[in-house]
Amino acid sequence: MALGNIIVGQSGGPTSVINSSLAGVFKTALDMKEGKVYGMLNGIDGLLHHQYIDMTERIKNDLDVELLKRTPSSFLGSCRRKVKPEDYEDIFKILNELEIGSFFYIGGNDSMDTIKQLSEYGNKIGSPIRFMGVPKTIDNDLAVTDHTPGYGSAAKYIGATLKEVIRDGLVYSHATVSVVEIMGRDAGWLTLAASLAKGEDCEGVDLIYLPEVPFDIDKFVAKVKELHEKKGSLVIAVSEGIHTADGKYICEMAASDRMVDSFGHVALSGTATYLSNLLAGELGCKTRAIEFSTMQRCANHLASLTDINEAYAAGAMAVEAAAKGETGKVVIFKRVSTEPYIMTTETYDVNAIANEVKNVPLEWIINDGTGISDEAVKYLRPLIAGELQPVMVNGLPRHITVKDC
Amino acid sequence: MALGNIIVGQSGGPTSVINSSLAGVFKTALDMKEGKVYGMLNGIDGLLHHQYIDMTERIKNDLDVELLKRTPSSFLGSCRRKVKPEDYEDIFKILNELEIGSFFYIGGNDSMDTIKQLSEYGNKIGSPIRFMGVPKTIDNDLAVTDHTPGYGSAAKYIGATLKEVIRDGLVYSHATVSVVEIMGRDAGWLTLAASLAKGEDCEGVDLIYLPEVPFDIDKFVAKVKELHEKKGSLVIAVSEGIHTADGKYICEMAASDRMVDSFGHVALSGTATYLSNLLAGELGCKTRAIEFSTMQRCANHLASLTDINEAYAAGAMAVEAAAKGETGKVVIFKRVSTEPYIMTTETYDVNAIANEVKNVPLEWIINDGTGISDEAVKYLRPLIAGELQPVMVNGLPRHITVKDC
Repeated sequence: MALGNIIVGQSGGPTSVINSSLAGVFKTALDMKEGKVYGMLNGIDGLLHHQYIDMTERIKNDLDVELLKRTPSSFLGSCRRKVKPEDYEDIFKILNELEIGSFFYIGGNDSMDTIKQLSEYGNKIGSPIRFMGVPKTIDNDLAVTDHTPGYGSAAKYIGATLKEVIRDGLVYSHATVSVVEIMGRDAGWLTLAASLAKGEDCEGVDLIYLPEVPFDIDKFVAKVKELHEKKGSLVIAVSEGIHTADGKYICEMAASDRMVDSFGHVALSGTATYLSNLLAGELGCKTRAIEFSTMQRCANHLASLTDINEAYAAGAMAVEAAAKGETGKVVIFKRVSTEPYIMTTETYDVNAIANEVKNVPLEWIINDGTGISDEAVKYLRPLIAGELQPVMVNGLPRHITVKDC
Repeated sequence: MALGNIIVGQSGGPTSVINSSLAGVFKTALDMKEGKVYGMLNGIDGLLHHQYIDMTERIKNDLDVELLKRTPSSFLGSCRRKVKPEDYEDIFKILNELEIGSFFYIGGNDSMDTIKQLSEYGNKIGSPIRFMGVPKTIDNDLAVTDHTPGYGSAAKYIGATLKEVIRDGLVYSHATVSVVEIMGRDAGWLTLAASLAKGEDCEGVDLIYLPEVPFDIDKFVAKVKELHEKKGSLVIAVSEGIHTADGKYICEMAASDRMVDSFGHVALSGTATYLSNLLAGELGCKTRAIEFSTMQRCANHLASLTDINEAYAAGAMAVEAAAKGETGKVVIFKRVSTEPYIMTTETYDVNAIANEVKNVPLEWIINDGTGISDEAVKYLRPLIAGELQPVMVNGLPRHITVKDC
């Protein structure tokens, strides 16, 4: 079955390697020489406004492909639009006008739902267009797959930056308690990566709090006090999504107002600030709040080569599957072995993945909810292996963008 | 004049390259084979408590020297102690016990004051001990010198990370206004580096606010509104130290309480959060506050090779000067040429430097206090040139520490 013209889009929050998946889709489709390679601008939202490009007009050679791998955020732009039944006809009309044979969507849970809906509708109306999902999310909360492209690089940023922050925090003879806030609304995968900082040259973070375990403020303060008296300076990693047993987010205790995004998710921030202020009062020592903020998902200069290569492979695999006639599928990773690290890709029914959330296994969270098991570190370690040197121009990493500046 | 045994200490806030200066002092003194190389732990504060090490017990070979260059924060620990006349006798007693011939202190303004006091007292009592200052500060606010080791790497981090944050912020079709807070209490040098993000592949930040120019909140909101209506998404860089014409810090408008460090400096934070919340109300769009926090001074993995080499040279030069009998001096940089970049080192009377502050030239701040001139970018560009690859072990940069973990 011919691939035909293809169109690819990116959706949801960006990652450091979402463009590696785009590179994988682009280059694999291009090499098949079966048709045009379109890119929708700002995902399905742009497509519905007839916004797309012929990707060969912007990615002209292998150097551009290499730059694409080294460019953070979504090259084609993104959206948070959830596709609705009333959009189906418009979308298929545009796809048919462009004579699209295969449609690729790189994104997280909500994007997989888009693939689910469009492939189901396509089947219903007898459309030959294949719909394939390429997973990405720094949150690593997609079901079924061993892990998700984007996670390894975010984990590497968190591990490396925490090592630097820990060194920085130990510099004075007087004690400083640092509270570092890490992304992750419901799943603690990113905060889990704080465990990577510990090693032969680094004492690691002292306490780690994931949202999978209810957060008890009194126990937290007591635990920090005890450690602070014993050890002095501390570095504590907390997920932005930690909440009490009755579901109250810690950040809400300080927030003056709640902001909600277009999916109805509460926009969180300020957990570290709240806890840091609380500890300053309770401990009477210098405390500071550090948020890794969007750098977690866009610090491409520190991306994991393993993650970059796997993101590329996921895009390539989706194209190959579509060329074989598969539709309504998403590319997943299966771990064959951890030592040595062997990972394979498969395609999987998108219905079994969309709208499912995977949390950190509770058995990986130890020490009464304040520590991470060695097994979790073993799971994580291969995901952050290797580096891809940025192309440095004028002292800074060079990126490639849809428009020249 | 023989160098004799030497002792070296680090003081003040750490930088990414303060250990390169330590490496320069250590290796240059070691190669002279004139005596022992001691390191004081936690600066003058530790010295007064007889806390020091024989550095050859920890830095054993050239690989260790390379790791030292790649380790952020102060290898020997730091302090914020200001030396006082009542400390003089104790300090000289300890130095004489160790048969110290030369004393090196790597630090900022307050550390140069320590060199000033100890060298003056040494002269007064006829001590043969030489006292040399090696400058470091990410703030770049030391007088006389063209720039200060530590600044180039912080500037490189700010430029590189802003490029990534700008890419991240442009991803959605709906507008986001990001306010990025950059360190710098009184001098805007670090925020000046936000201008580096602009280039062939990046539109740069839209507005830059330095503390050298009084900040007018109404004008700020009007300017952002105007740009937001024209352009949509914006990235704005602000110094933590921006303040109104009557001296009120913006961060104080939100702060619930003021924290003061041991030098009497007000501890600042929250400028970006305050402005971001203000803009959300005024513009009715999504806004976010990002603080580069301590990562600005400890992101050694992204250090500037120029900065690393210059920091090393400053340490080496101080040792050579002491061996020639100089005392009460500090190493400074003189720019011979910008294109091509040629920088020389000199020693300078510490009296003319200690306690002086250098601000960003007002003529470099353009567009009614919201932009940076091309001349400033020309000044900055060579300081961020080049990289020194971290030694990556298990996927993360390897550091060297005084104690094994």
